[in-house]
Amino acid sequence: MSSPSRRRGHDPESVLSIAVAVFNERGYDGTSMEDLARALGVTKSAIYYHVPGKEQLLARALDRALDGLFELAADERAARGPAIDRLEWVVRRSVRLLAERLPYVTLLLRVRGNSATEQAALARRREFDAFVSHLVKEAAAEGAIRPDLDPALVTRLLFGAVSSIAEWYRPERGASADEVADALVTMAFDGLRG
Amino acid sequence: MSSPSRRRGHDPESVLSIAVAVFNERGYDGTSMEDLARALGVTKSAIYYHVPGKEQLLARALDRALDGLFELAADERAARGPAIDRLEWVVRRSVRLLAERLPYVTLLLRVRGNSATEQAALARRREFDAFVSHLVKEAAAEGAIRPDLDPALVTRLLFGAVSSIAEWYRPERGASADEVADALVTMAFDGLRG
Repeated sequence: MSSPSRRRGHDPESVLSIAVAVFNERGYDGTSMEDLARALGVTKSAIYYHVPGKEQLLARALDRALDGLFELAADERAARGPAIDRLEWVVRRSVRLLAERLPYVTLLLRVRGNSATEQAALARRREFDAFVSHLVKEAAAEGAIRPDLDPALVTRLLFGAVSSIAEWYRPERGASADEVADALVTMAFDGLRG
Repeated sequence: MSSPSRRRGHDPESVLSIAVAVFNERGYDGTSMEDLARALGVTKSAIYYHVPGKEQLLARALDRALDGLFELAADERAARGPAIDRLEWVVRRSVRLLAERLPYVTLLLRVRGNSATEQAALARRREFDAFVSHLVKEAAAEGAIRPDLDPALVTRLLFGAVSSIAEWYRPERGASADEVADALVTMAFDGLRG
């Protein structure tokens, strides 16, 4: 007969998903192994069978968000054609990624660098930011961005708007990820003035 | 002779400002009265002379941000003329307010509703959001916003971009608040395409 914890059938994927929900609700620093045990419905002594350690769960969760960003940055649609079109594609895909991996991206956006794991995640995030920033500069150099706009500010404001979507987007109601991406691209690239 | 704590000369304003810095660094929930005493340079027993209680400091700090938003909403420049121009004015002023009261706005943006004080702050924030949302709808009704843009999404994305400025804006370096506001208004109202 399997143990009660096995009967609940926690594969690594569901452990990660439940842990991330707890991290987002209580804050990573405010989450104890006991909190995780309670959320998983296992005893305090059984938790280490499921969870190697809090920080390893955090690392896996943050990679879930960051790997997605690096995959889209490595996609050939981010590498060929006019920079302004590639930028638009990256913005759309970033919004979709945020919607598809919402709890993981939410966790990433709250990281402040309080541990080696968080520092590593911030370093990867800066690498992605540098990729976007380069794309905006290319688009400016190709004359596709208003010359009175500073590329560095465009990068920050554009991806600030993308990140802010995590604050209110709920997949089960309201606009779909593609509708949100359309609205953002229309507003930021062509302007909201009718 | 005055006590050591009096000699340090903490008026209510400097107590509030130091407390908000600690709240932003450690998180409000993670800040103890002992942390506040240490930051103020007073003994643990002297802290209640300076600080009525953690939650009252939080309430005063959040009001500092929220009162600013309500003042600009009540300004006559937000009440007269084409709605699109009033919206632009409100966006510019919101960016300037964020820059001028950065630690207070940062604290407000992190509020999750974990206490009566936080719930009250969120209610006031929603009231301001409703004011902006109404302005966007007016501008749409006046034909000044692209008909293919949903006013509710415009409101969220526009003020999401404003809020995201708190993540990276530093008054002592980089662009000024007015330069950031100019860039945001140009990008969001007229589009970044050159």
